[in-house]
Amino acid sequence: MARFVYADNAATTPVAKEVVEAMLPCLTEHWGNPSSLYGKGQEAASLLSAARASVAKSLGCKPEEIYFTSGGSESDNWAIKGAMHHAKKGRNTLITSKIEHHAVLRTCETLEKEGYRVIYLDVDEYGVVDLRQLRSVIDETTALVAVMYANNEIGTIQPIAEIAEIAHANGALMFTDAVQAVGHEPIDLSTLGVDLLALSGHKFNAPKGVGALYVGRGVKIGSYIDGGGQERRRRGGTENLASIVGLAKALELAVARLPERDMIRQKRDRLMNELLKIPYSRLNGHPTERLAGNLNIGFEFIEGESMILWLDMAGICASTGSACSSDSLDPSHVLLATGVPHEKAHGSLRLSISHETTDEDIDYILETLPPIVERLREMSPLYETVKK
Amino acid sequence: MARFVYADNAATTPVAKEVVEAMLPCLTEHWGNPSSLYGKGQEAASLLSAARASVAKSLGCKPEEIYFTSGGSESDNWAIKGAMHHAKKGRNTLITSKIEHHAVLRTCETLEKEGYRVIYLDVDEYGVVDLRQLRSVIDETTALVAVMYANNEIGTIQPIAEIAEIAHANGALMFTDAVQAVGHEPIDLSTLGVDLLALSGHKFNAPKGVGALYVGRGVKIGSYIDGGGQERRRRGGTENLASIVGLAKALELAVARLPERDMIRQKRDRLMNELLKIPYSRLNGHPTERLAGNLNIGFEFIEGESMILWLDMAGICASTGSACSSDSLDPSHVLLATGVPHEKAHGSLRLSISHETTDEDIDYILETLPPIVERLREMSPLYETVKK
Repeated sequence: MARFVYADNAATTPVAKEVVEAMLPCLTEHWGNPSSLYGKGQEAASLLSAARASVAKSLGCKPEEIYFTSGGSESDNWAIKGAMHHAKKGRNTLITSKIEHHAVLRTCETLEKEGYRVIYLDVDEYGVVDLRQLRSVIDETTALVAVMYANNEIGTIQPIAEIAEIAHANGALMFTDAVQAVGHEPIDLSTLGVDLLALSGHKFNAPKGVGALYVGRGVKIGSYIDGGGQERRRRGGTENLASIVGLAKALELAVARLPERDMIRQKRDRLMNELLKIPYSRLNGHPTERLAGNLNIGFEFIEGESMILWLDMAGICASTGSACSSDSLDPSHVLLATGVPHEKAHGSLRLSISHETTDEDIDYILETLPPIVERLREMSPLYETVKK
Repeated sequence: MARFVYADNAATTPVAKEVVEAMLPCLTEHWGNPSSLYGKGQEAASLLSAARASVAKSLGCKPEEIYFTSGGSESDNWAIKGAMHHAKKGRNTLITSKIEHHAVLRTCETLEKEGYRVIYLDVDEYGVVDLRQLRSVIDETTALVAVMYANNEIGTIQPIAEIAEIAHANGALMFTDAVQAVGHEPIDLSTLGVDLLALSGHKFNAPKGVGALYVGRGVKIGSYIDGGGQERRRRGGTENLASIVGLAKALELAVARLPERDMIRQKRDRLMNELLKIPYSRLNGHPTERLAGNLNIGFEFIEGESMILWLDMAGICASTGSACSSDSLDPSHVLLATGVPHEKAHGSLRLSISHETTDEDIDYILETLPPIVERLREMSPLYETVKK
């Protein structure tokens, strides 16, 4: 029990030591308002400008295409509502997928209430968006296609470049919620072809409460937070300099670390292959086209929440799916969309590992989890029936 | 020049040492996601809950009436757009004042474009909202009255309780942007009578990028950032725990320090009385009903920007007005609304001092500023004419 294994990096990540070190001077010394004309303000403005240039470089875009926000949810809301509210006349349809994050799905619901039409694309059993369906429903009324880069629960990576091509061929804009992918997958905006991309700092070892939205040149989305002249008059509010500097630093580190993905994938695969030996278990998501650190397995006859609590007692942090909806008792909309039946969707476990996860951590999970599954099944009347 | 005097606390404030100390453990240790079910998440959830209780206590409301946001601008946008979008049928008018912050005024412009009616109240020569006008224009179509607690440029404090009474007598809601007042004026929500109040951490020695919105029980404003279940499902996005804990700590300290206001006011009055001895100078704002630390003086024949830059060279940070609009060359909308003529509005200087300002700082400003005014006037052709 002395051991602590954090396997919920998709929910949030620890702030990197180097990131805290980069942030601290902004809290203690460079606390000026970047909009102020005097030296102390301009010193903050230069740090802001350097952070923006660094993020742009990490993503392969221009600094003036990066807008800092308070996180992934704000970026998602701004991109989607902004693109729809500023769409050309006659284009009032939004196409998205059934497995988006709630920050996207609830935004879509708001737009539906406002009178927009929203089409929710199906996904296959691995969670991959149906491109044939996309091609058949997209038309000259489509303003925006919004499909996430990688799913937060099952890790499935979507064919974003291909989706963007379909969108553009039909005169629509393309947005991707890349909150789970930025810092974890190589992303080059100069070739990806999206018009809008959302990211969140705390998913790659930056602090919480800071994110960004990439807005390609000429893309019209207006402002979401009306106010002062910050962010080239498109996002009001005094800039959160310390966190922005932290985000830029964390992204630099994450991008430099991308080659380590293979090692993370190897550890994840070992974990996957061993855990799938447990009877009545199944992999959720795609076997290969998934985030390197993501594993999501369904264990029949038991409740995900019980596994989480037993794992927690053993010092392992894991989740059933999205932390953002952990207060809900509904089964995961993502698993249901991939065709997992209602009763089986309840027994899923997400383990999301990182560059900090060691082989010993994997060993410990492999020692700890199977007996927990076994004990929980022993308490399950359903399992009793099956065993007989 | 070794001396550094920060007299722009209305733009932003240094983060207090105690606040950085309170934040650091949240960055280095308690970095769990408050929505996660395991111990590390729940430990973050308790810290969040304690911070909410502390802010509520500081303001005299219930913890469940406090919603954390990314700052004053988001709070302003949410409160005003939310109240208008959720107003009862037939109530489509918003009444505000001509001297609000841009986060409010630009939000009003957005609402006007959406088809809402906005009435902008006049202010008198001191910047006080015209209550007779309010009484004459308010009617059964009014959904919301939005008047700031204290002005960010001239410091004038509005009769908020009285305005709230008028709003309520007419079935309208009352919102106050209290970004400049919270932590600087005693505010007791249990008696103030407002339905919605916005605040921003970095105006009272908390970090940038965090604020809050007070939403009185039963007041309907929906969500502004759609997403996960955070903030009782009304504000999506993983909570910015470190900054929220910092905000709560900073507010505790600021509220405990409120009795020091008299000392700040005395220093400000000495500065004011001495500076007003300069010929062709005038006080902007109210002589007594103003924030203790705020001073705003107009000096004829010179440009505010030139004063700022000369003061900066002497180590003094000051501003012409709002930092948020420092990229604009237009004269202050606040000063114009108080009747200051266009040409005179350009020569205004805002000095905003704090509990950290010493008597020596005041002495230094008094030694430094009058010669700067004199030298700038010597370069002014207009002043030449007047002298003759």
